[in-house]
Amino acid sequence: MAGIPWGYCPLFVLLSVCAWGHAKPVDLRRENVRNCSTSPHYLPVTVINTTVQLKDLRQQMHTWNLSAYIIPNTDGHMSEYIGEHDKRLAWITGFTGSSGTAVVTMGKAGLWTDSRYWTQAEQEMDCNWELHKEVGSAPIVNWLLTEIPTGGRVGFDPLLFSIGTWKTYDMALQGSHRELVSITTNLVDLVWGSERPPVPSQPIYALQEAFTGSTWQEKVSSIRSQMQKHRKAPTAVLLSMLDETAWLFNLRSSDIPYNPFFYSYALLTDSSIRLFVNKSRFNSETLQYLNSSCTGPMCVQLEDYNQVYDSVQAYTSGAVRIWIGTSNTMYAFYKVIPKDKLIEETYSPVMVTKAVKNSKEQALLRASHVRDAVPVIRYLVWLEKNVPKGTVDEFSGAKLLDKFRGEEEFSSGPSFKTISASGLNAALAHYSPSKELHRKLSSDEMYLVDSGGQYWDGTTDITRTVHWGTPSAFQKEAYTRVLIGNMDLSRLIFPAATSGLMLEAFARKALWDVGLNYGHGTGHGIGNFLCVHEWPVGFHSSGLTMGKGMFTSIEPGYYQDGEFGIRLEDVALVVEAKTKYPGTYLTFEVVSLVPYDRNLIDVSLLSSEQLQYLNRYYQTIREKVGPELQRRQLLEEFEWLQQHTEPLSARAPCTAFLSSLLAASTLAILGWSI
Amino acid sequence: MAGIPWGYCPLFVLLSVCAWGHAKPVDLRRENVRNCSTSPHYLPVTVINTTVQLKDLRQQMHTWNLSAYIIPNTDGHMSEYIGEHDKRLAWITGFTGSSGTAVVTMGKAGLWTDSRYWTQAEQEMDCNWELHKEVGSAPIVNWLLTEIPTGGRVGFDPLLFSIGTWKTYDMALQGSHRELVSITTNLVDLVWGSERPPVPSQPIYALQEAFTGSTWQEKVSSIRSQMQKHRKAPTAVLLSMLDETAWLFNLRSSDIPYNPFFYSYALLTDSSIRLFVNKSRFNSETLQYLNSSCTGPMCVQLEDYNQVYDSVQAYTSGAVRIWIGTSNTMYAFYKVIPKDKLIEETYSPVMVTKAVKNSKEQALLRASHVRDAVPVIRYLVWLEKNVPKGTVDEFSGAKLLDKFRGEEEFSSGPSFKTISASGLNAALAHYSPSKELHRKLSSDEMYLVDSGGQYWDGTTDITRTVHWGTPSAFQKEAYTRVLIGNMDLSRLIFPAATSGLMLEAFARKALWDVGLNYGHGTGHGIGNFLCVHEWPVGFHSSGLTMGKGMFTSIEPGYYQDGEFGIRLEDVALVVEAKTKYPGTYLTFEVVSLVPYDRNLIDVSLLSSEQLQYLNRYYQTIREKVGPELQRRQLLEEFEWLQQHTEPLSARAPCTAFLSSLLAASTLAILGWSI
Repeated sequence: MAGIPWGYCPLFVLLSVCAWGHAKPVDLRRENVRNCSTSPHYLPVTVINTTVQLKDLRQQMHTWNLSAYIIPNTDGHMSEYIGEHDKRLAWITGFTGSSGTAVVTMGKAGLWTDSRYWTQAEQEMDCNWELHKEVGSAPIVNWLLTEIPTGGRVGFDPLLFSIGTWKTYDMALQGSHRELVSITTNLVDLVWGSERPPVPSQPIYALQEAFTGSTWQEKVSSIRSQMQKHRKAPTAVLLSMLDETAWLFNLRSSDIPYNPFFYSYALLTDSSIRLFVNKSRFNSETLQYLNSSCTGPMCVQLEDYNQVYDSVQAYTSGAVRIWIGTSNTMYAFYKVIPKDKLIEETYSPVMVTKAVKNSKEQALLRASHVRDAVPVIRYLVWLEKNVPKGTVDEFSGAKLLDKFRGEEEFSSGPSFKTISASGLNAALAHYSPSKELHRKLSSDEMYLVDSGGQYWDGTTDITRTVHWGTPSAFQKEAYTRVLIGNMDLSRLIFPAATSGLMLEAFARKALWDVGLNYGHGTGHGIGNFLCVHEWPVGFHSSGLTMGKGMFTSIEPGYYQDGEFGIRLEDVALVVEAKTKYPGTYLTFEVVSLVPYDRNLIDVSLLSSEQLQYLNRYYQTIREKVGPELQRRQLLEEFEWLQQHTEPLSARAPCTAFLSSLLAASTLAILGWSI
Repeated sequence: MAGIPWGYCPLFVLLSVCAWGHAKPVDLRRENVRNCSTSPHYLPVTVINTTVQLKDLRQQMHTWNLSAYIIPNTDGHMSEYIGEHDKRLAWITGFTGSSGTAVVTMGKAGLWTDSRYWTQAEQEMDCNWELHKEVGSAPIVNWLLTEIPTGGRVGFDPLLFSIGTWKTYDMALQGSHRELVSITTNLVDLVWGSERPPVPSQPIYALQEAFTGSTWQEKVSSIRSQMQKHRKAPTAVLLSMLDETAWLFNLRSSDIPYNPFFYSYALLTDSSIRLFVNKSRFNSETLQYLNSSCTGPMCVQLEDYNQVYDSVQAYTSGAVRIWIGTSNTMYAFYKVIPKDKLIEETYSPVMVTKAVKNSKEQALLRASHVRDAVPVIRYLVWLEKNVPKGTVDEFSGAKLLDKFRGEEEFSSGPSFKTISASGLNAALAHYSPSKELHRKLSSDEMYLVDSGGQYWDGTTDITRTVHWGTPSAFQKEAYTRVLIGNMDLSRLIFPAATSGLMLEAFARKALWDVGLNYGHGTGHGIGNFLCVHEWPVGFHSSGLTMGKGMFTSIEPGYYQDGEFGIRLEDVALVVEAKTKYPGTYLTFEVVSLVPYDRNLIDVSLLSSEQLQYLNRYYQTIREKVGPELQRRQLLEEFEWLQQHTEPLSARAPCTAFLSSLLAASTLAILGWSI
């Protein structure tokens, strides 16, 4: 799962925040929160005083004649993680959580965030700020309608709003006689001034050919060919998201935490390629690689990052039609392109093309997963030995796993902040330990570790849950039902082009059967040294329909408030299925290769088909990861792998019946065991 | 299933028309179609000459300065079935199929329809008309862009376009420099003139209290209470659909085939109730029932049907906000209500309230299904005796079933045109036999019958597929897999408020497993003496999430081109499920009570859970329908029911294994049979 940003996809918000899950956060830090109802206010030391910032911002609002100003926690590319210089929300509010929206009026200031962050917000915000325990634009607009007068102007930065976000605000304000005002100058940046961290300037480099599925020239030609075939005859494709430019040009850098991207936009026309980026970040070799010194259709013309709006606007003066993905384009562009020159689809052709990995990309991603199994297994072996000693905690454990991953070939750091959660902490959605706040690992508790790596050939993401002592019957049942869900979805056969949303309940059924469930989505796409959450593949409502060559995570879970959390996550490739009758059917091939915890599996709950599937998967792990461990002379880990992938066996389904029918001695010769 | 109109719900179109199903229509009538490429044209006698109509229409288009005019096959209420005086498409084109859109330009005329109707269109249309084998607004707009010049005006009747349909055309035409022009005078009606059939004038009557879930006053109060609680403070609710007014006022008539409705609109405000209808259709008793002589908040003010636009427009001049369901409101209203006085939700509060049946409505619907089993069983028994004689055909069979249903208490005719399809005809989506064109039933073929009744207490819809001879192994496998799908969805346990779209794949899995599927949706809501396809309940993408008290059909199928078709459809009530761990979980209780065909069930494919479920269902049929048959002295049918609901038994799952392990004699004592 990793730390999927809850605001990123509307469905995720729905699934995550709604009441159906059991994963309400347990408050670990209640003791140290602000109290704004006393006089004077009680403010813990963790609070940031925002009086000066707010005064300066209101001064700007006055200059722009605004009644309110909206500050989302995004950057100009809808990035999942944002850079330091984009952390406007944290600077103005004090609140450092990853998800939230602030609104400032002349008299009030409010922060809206979801339940994960309520305590944190009370620890970090001073009493200038109201905390609103809601998400989405509707409650913000309702509040605005009571706070600002008719005729009031509500300002926002069009660079920080996607088209979709803008539409929800615009629709909610329609008919209310308040005006949504797009201001391209960011008012927070104006008052932040010289204190604002600088934008990154480290080199941007080309990926080695060994790690790319095709050359940038091939990718450009493929997108242009789609433009030519499009019935609305686009003359250009506009790209806003950082993984779009990184993928298209096979370029990488490190501007964004956990994502090897660089700040950029691209306008790919039928006769030119314009990349908007800080040019000084390329060395001469990379400039040559990009053919940047010419202006032909296969030359990448580098233009200044900040020139993108003017350049797009200038381009629209011609007889052009710009193809955009409305779900991945910033409102700033939507605003400058005349509607009759806009071709709107949900996703850009780059997003859709990138979603299907070609055979080389598939091989690269598979290879990264074989290698990625090694640090995870090394960590599990190490835990098995060290947890009983009482010397391991969530934070030191996560650090060690990150270190093991860093030792792998082609490693380029973790693909998200490792979730290392023991006991009740694992029931908190997206919990991550810190140096200050963590729990000791114990043989008496379950432990959940959700982690992934960035490698030059692929991005990984895997979750395993373990128990080194004696799990309760309920823990075993819940774990086994989560495992059944994982396997039942993984082995499902379904027609090509089925929506993931129609499939994901197969990962829930075994839990539903007994009245259990989980409150998050079931899986997301993943990239080749790109995003760990690569849209739009997955099991959510806005995903692409399933196609051969897509990769998705499969990650059911179960969370028991205040007690434990279980998640079993694998990455799987969509492959063709062989069916009895002919037809184009698909299924999944799991490429994550780490065994589950035998200590937590109640074999009696598995059907013979599930058991067969599990044993085949274990055989695959042995065949693929075993030689890798041997090659690396990790003999203890090899031994552990052999033990943990021993075929599981069950009572035959009729054993109980037979026992009552026949003498036990008749069966003894069969040597059946559970 | 009944004849779900394919244009009614976008998902249905997707599911039905896309390539994934196996149900391509087999052409039965190829011999008798037009040939426009010969000179002179070859026109079969079934063709209608439309030259005069088209000339007159073009004259009108000239008057209105139109380059094109769009003629959909709908009425002013988005009705599934339309009255004679609304059959504009048939009158102007000659084509009488239920689904299609015509577009006339000054030089050309085109009809767009789906594959079910291609042959029929070639039989009925003269060479004035091009047949376009496509559906949806996109291909129509593409054609318009090539046929009409820049600046061209495309006319349509805003009464016949839903808001959604209008939006798709508007969006597709955006930026094309062609204008979509709403003309409230219907141009076809102008040229149709006095030949146009009159609007119905039969009485509108109040349902007896015994057949209503609550009084109209209670329903009005409930909707008003929802208005008061709504955060956008609507002052009125506008109702366009005929089942909305029928439900709200507990009134019925027979303006629409198969649906007991009357042409009407309603504007329910916080202080008044206005029903737009032909007043002369009420007798004094019904006028009194409606409190129509006063103007207070609980008096139904009757206004002329044709006054609705002026009245709504006049209402909007005040400080009002009108709550509409965008999916069930005509564009004509959307156009006259200022956007800031409109509260748009997908479905009106009446649609949403009606979707959940209260306990009395549930009891009524259940009771109608118990009675409805009787004519279906009588028919199946009769077929079993008469088909081998070779005297039964699809058409006479359907007539007999309709007759049996008509003899039931509270009967008010069929709820849709009975689908009675033998052999290869059952593979045609929505095939219905006619007096002229039908197939003989035979013991060598499968036979599918999909039928339903309107009763004062409830609407029914059931499909059974039978074989009186020796089905092939493939037929048995396909039938059993369809049955497994039906049962697996029916017995599924799922959390409250889950979307039906997330559940419906459970009805497909057993087919998918071997590379089979079906190309239609899995189920639809159903009403209490209302629509047989009652939206928005069901398993489609635009359905409401599942809630206790909803009724839906569950109807997987399998169709083998040119050979046979299988569908097993039951109506089920959403009920609370008891789960091992506490939580609000739901499941289905099947209320259709007719056994499946034992001759087609391959018991070896059923799991023990499926077998148990099936036997429990059979026990329920015996308990509920048995006494009804006895009460009616239908003793032969009672006997048949007992035979056909005998518990099924399977080889125990380990029999095969045991046989090889132990002497057969050991087992003989158990008397297991298949």
